[in-house]
Amino acid sequence: MIRIGVDVGGTGIQIGVVNNKFKIIRESSIPTRTDLPFEDQLRQIAACIDSTVREAGFSLNDIESVGIGIPGIASAKTGEIIKCTNMGWYHMPFRDVFIRYLNKPVHIDNDANVAALAESVAGVSAGTSSSVFITIGTGIGSGIIINGRIWSGAHHIGGELGHVIFDLGGVPCTCGNSGCLERYCSATALIRMAREAVSDCPDSMIIQSVNMDPDKIEAKTVFDAARAGDPLAETVYQQYIDNLAQAIGSVVNLLDPEVIVLGGGVSKAGSFLLDPLTREYPKYVLFNDQPLPPLKLAVLGSDAGIIGAAMLS
Amino acid sequence: MIRIGVDVGGTGIQIGVVNNKFKIIRESSIPTRTDLPFEDQLRQIAACIDSTVREAGFSLNDIESVGIGIPGIASAKTGEIIKCTNMGWYHMPFRDVFIRYLNKPVHIDNDANVAALAESVAGVSAGTSSSVFITIGTGIGSGIIINGRIWSGAHHIGGELGHVIFDLGGVPCTCGNSGCLERYCSATALIRMAREAVSDCPDSMIIQSVNMDPDKIEAKTVFDAARAGDPLAETVYQQYIDNLAQAIGSVVNLLDPEVIVLGGGVSKAGSFLLDPLTREYPKYVLFNDQPLPPLKLAVLGSDAGIIGAAMLS
Repeated sequence: MIRIGVDVGGTGIQIGVVNNKFKIIRESSIPTRTDLPFEDQLRQIAACIDSTVREAGFSLNDIESVGIGIPGIASAKTGEIIKCTNMGWYHMPFRDVFIRYLNKPVHIDNDANVAALAESVAGVSAGTSSSVFITIGTGIGSGIIINGRIWSGAHHIGGELGHVIFDLGGVPCTCGNSGCLERYCSATALIRMAREAVSDCPDSMIIQSVNMDPDKIEAKTVFDAARAGDPLAETVYQQYIDNLAQAIGSVVNLLDPEVIVLGGGVSKAGSFLLDPLTREYPKYVLFNDQPLPPLKLAVLGSDAGIIGAAMLS
Repeated sequence: MIRIGVDVGGTGIQIGVVNNKFKIIRESSIPTRTDLPFEDQLRQIAACIDSTVREAGFSLNDIESVGIGIPGIASAKTGEIIKCTNMGWYHMPFRDVFIRYLNKPVHIDNDANVAALAESVAGVSAGTSSSVFITIGTGIGSGIIINGRIWSGAHHIGGELGHVIFDLGGVPCTCGNSGCLERYCSATALIRMAREAVSDCPDSMIIQSVNMDPDKIEAKTVFDAARAGDPLAETVYQQYIDNLAQAIGSVVNLLDPEVIVLGGGVSKAGSFLLDPLTREYPKYVLFNDQPLPPLKLAVLGSDAGIIGAAMLS
């Protein structure tokens, strides 16, 4: 048997055939067409599943289930898309409509939750029954796995670690509030910290390496300069690590999962991110004389969207 | 059949016989005797259960299970007390020892978790499958119920909402860190805010009502003065409500339970606390155009310790 994972994004929809070893054995994509009616978008997805399954050497009869991850909120129970701004989908009965084009068990969830599930089934946290997956990119996303299942809340709006208050009355957030965790822990936060720091320090390798153009500073710029020993970059990097350590300590104080998985663009810094965090975060855990969750780097990368969607049940 | 709930506290141990309607039908207490060896303390608890059950008109054969709530961390799985500083218990095999004196199924958990369970089974959140119980007293305690069961983490150290970072680098906490949520949301926090405010304002009803002695300010002092329209008290009260609203919004963003239950001393302020919080907290929820968890006041009070312990399974 095979399972189908669908990863909906703003520019494209990835469709994958996943075998019972959690491997993607065939993958296709179609462009996102927000200009089409909802029904037509779903018909296109179903048609692409059909052709991809055939290309993989299977038939529709071999499909156990179809799972879809969306950048928004959805009810796993009713199969309804509640809100998916990028796609212009609001209160759309995904399961009910999709089943007209492909009559299989259909599951749906948020994309960060789906990635968390993928890692916990087929990735770095495989074999654990609880984990928190934190994506560190432009913002901070997260997915919570408890007792082997996604916990996205009673109203499907949980798992938004990025918008937990982290600095009362602090930096304004895109969400309209102030002091949200992602303002201190995302790639955007690291870049902001670096820009503020270089404004007084034109000698820093951070700004020199981007031809004195602060708009060109990326997370990698700071990590590279810190690795090379640039004093200003080291200061910014230490502060950023401390912010993340406090965020991770908070997650452990509240949720204490079996493992914490870090993904997203910033996690590409690898051990330069993981090692200091592993060392520093226990300082912020109340019962830090007890066994604590290890921090691990996500391993599935962009495949997590398809694999996790396929694993939804 | 009856169930036994044991609520261990620093000065006394409460023992209750709970019927299948979740009512305490008989209750006794013994003084906490930390001077005695662990075995002797457990033998005394077992003896008190024996006499209390007889007084209630039952025999030991009628006992379905014994549950115990402790002010510390314990493994629900192994029945081990991991750390209970007040009692001087560290890595004590509670279940294994207790069963020698009373051979019944024995369950153990942290007291805040037990209270959360009590409310979710027999109290204000009865009938829900997920809830977060927040005790607002000297500190902030919390218990998380997911899918009808206590979630205290993979290492039994979760549910410590009070020590989640809430104000990066902020007010020093008793735990050794700075900016913990309980420094802004507990009764202690409210009192600190009031003391700081009155230092410049000797005309305030807050300080006048305690004979100008700032050490006598309690949470109730501030609430009473705010209710009476004292301008300084109103300012302090509004700030405190805003802190709590941000904390509750954060809990919803991360966990989105079906209901949030407020207990502890501060919750005695009743609707004067609940109404503004219910109005204000959605401001801090990312998806606040969705149905949100209602806030409710705990109803079981100090009985929650016994009832919740009896409900452990």
